[in-house]
Amino acid sequence: MFSSGFAANLGAVTALSGAEAAIVTDKYIHASLIEGCRLSRSDVAAVAHATPSAIKHALATRRKPRALVVTDSVFSVDGDLAPLGELAGICRAHGAALLVDDAHGFGVLGEGGRGAAHAAGLSGAPDVVTTVTLSKSLGAQGGAVLGPRRVIKHLVDTARSFIFDTALAPASAAAALAALHALKEEPGLAEKVLENAGNLAMSLKAAGLKASMPDAAVISVQAPSAQTAAAWAAACAEQGIRVGCFRPPSVPDGISRLRLTARADLTESDVDRAVKVITATAPRGAAN
Amino acid sequence: MFSSGFAANLGAVTALSGAEAAIVTDKYIHASLIEGCRLSRSDVAAVAHATPSAIKHALATRRKPRALVVTDSVFSVDGDLAPLGELAGICRAHGAALLVDDAHGFGVLGEGGRGAAHAAGLSGAPDVVTTVTLSKSLGAQGGAVLGPRRVIKHLVDTARSFIFDTALAPASAAAALAALHALKEEPGLAEKVLENAGNLAMSLKAAGLKASMPDAAVISVQAPSAQTAAAWAAACAEQGIRVGCFRPPSVPDGISRLRLTARADLTESDVDRAVKVITATAPRGAAN
Repeated sequence: MFSSGFAANLGAVTALSGAEAAIVTDKYIHASLIEGCRLSRSDVAAVAHATPSAIKHALATRRKPRALVVTDSVFSVDGDLAPLGELAGICRAHGAALLVDDAHGFGVLGEGGRGAAHAAGLSGAPDVVTTVTLSKSLGAQGGAVLGPRRVIKHLVDTARSFIFDTALAPASAAAALAALHALKEEPGLAEKVLENAGNLAMSLKAAGLKASMPDAAVISVQAPSAQTAAAWAAACAEQGIRVGCFRPPSVPDGISRLRLTARADLTESDVDRAVKVITATAPRGAAN
Repeated sequence: MFSSGFAANLGAVTALSGAEAAIVTDKYIHASLIEGCRLSRSDVAAVAHATPSAIKHALATRRKPRALVVTDSVFSVDGDLAPLGELAGICRAHGAALLVDDAHGFGVLGEGGRGAAHAAGLSGAPDVVTTVTLSKSLGAQGGAVLGPRRVIKHLVDTARSFIFDTALAPASAAAALAALHALKEEPGLAEKVLENAGNLAMSLKAAGLKASMPDAAVISVQAPSAQTAAAWAAACAEQGIRVGCFRPPSVPDGISRLRLTARADLTESDVDRAVKVITATAPRGAAN
């Protein structure tokens, strides 16, 4: 347990790498993983997004004996899912460990929301480590690293963002635990998120907007420019619909977007209203 | 506001440095500041502990135009206070900014616990930035950076541990705010901490132990070895006195220690009992 998902990612990357290791990452990984790579003192190769062959090539041509592959499960900008099963196979064939940031999969994907690694059949794998945040689907604060016992022990002994940080506040830990219990009692909540995200995205596309089709809860809607994206998000907020705005430098491809996140408790009329407001406030050039 | 003091330190160091800057630090600074230095891409010089002349020399001989001096106010291992006024003068004379981690000073030092920078007359200085944690004297969670408005604006725009982290949980923010109000209403709490720390340290020294004389709430008691320090802390815990145990690699000088932190609400009999237990469980070689 860490005080944030950011701290969990820093701790996991740095404790599982080091000067004698190579790190290979999808270049669209979350900023907190990138910070971990910068702290790692490892050889770092960031390869093309969603290209397992590039991960494989980088592993095969590495100059260090040990290797760690780092990926988001669901990428935070477009909400697309990494091919975790394929990546795990490549890692095992090349003697690498796989670190999966499941911030956007945990509580949403897999049986009862057990996450993307579980959905890919990787739970309990000896060479797969998953990080999660307690502040997204669980609505609390904090982060966690899930993995083999010997990995957890190693993290406790060496992860500097664990050792030199204050432990998670009891109220936040208890809130996360209560949310976990709620999810266990009502596993359908996870499916409901996916259903709502799918409906939201399809309606936005039907209205002519450039919406991504979600693999989990995250939907991006492309905007013509950074300025129009910011104005669009502000116009939505004025009408009671809060959407994120991602623009350079925090988008890897330079394309500005609205970022929507579906929730389990959205009603059909909530979704309709969101689509109506987002469509009505769309800037010129936002439609296909 | 950050989700932890660790994240505040990462954000402040990285946002106020960069490839065109030199960083000069006391080599005993907290690990979170060291991580910030590693992420900074700056020239980093870590000089001898508590040696302003070494800071001055490093600033005078730097190869980069901009410079940041980084120090703890109260050092976390021995609890000694940095000469902040002198450091601020050196910084100003050499065109450097001063970043002070006041984790152990805030709520304890200065008028009503306003902290070490305030006590040194540096509040409101245009070239001094202070970081604090909400999880020590305020008993909550989170961290904050205090400084000129333009610095705060710059941090909001550029500090990656701010931008890419989840905001502090409302319950933790509210707990910190309530603690701040309590401190404002009862400013004597800060003095009481100092009084209790002084009494604790003097009693431990009188019992023959190698206790540091505290400048704030932190007292270290040297142990003969890492093993005896760990056993000593465990023996204290068994008797209901919880003390920290610092040993390599998390002590800068290789000396293992117990670390005690005094609180405002300790009674005379609490202090007596702590001294009695710590003395009774002391390993051979712990006494002067």
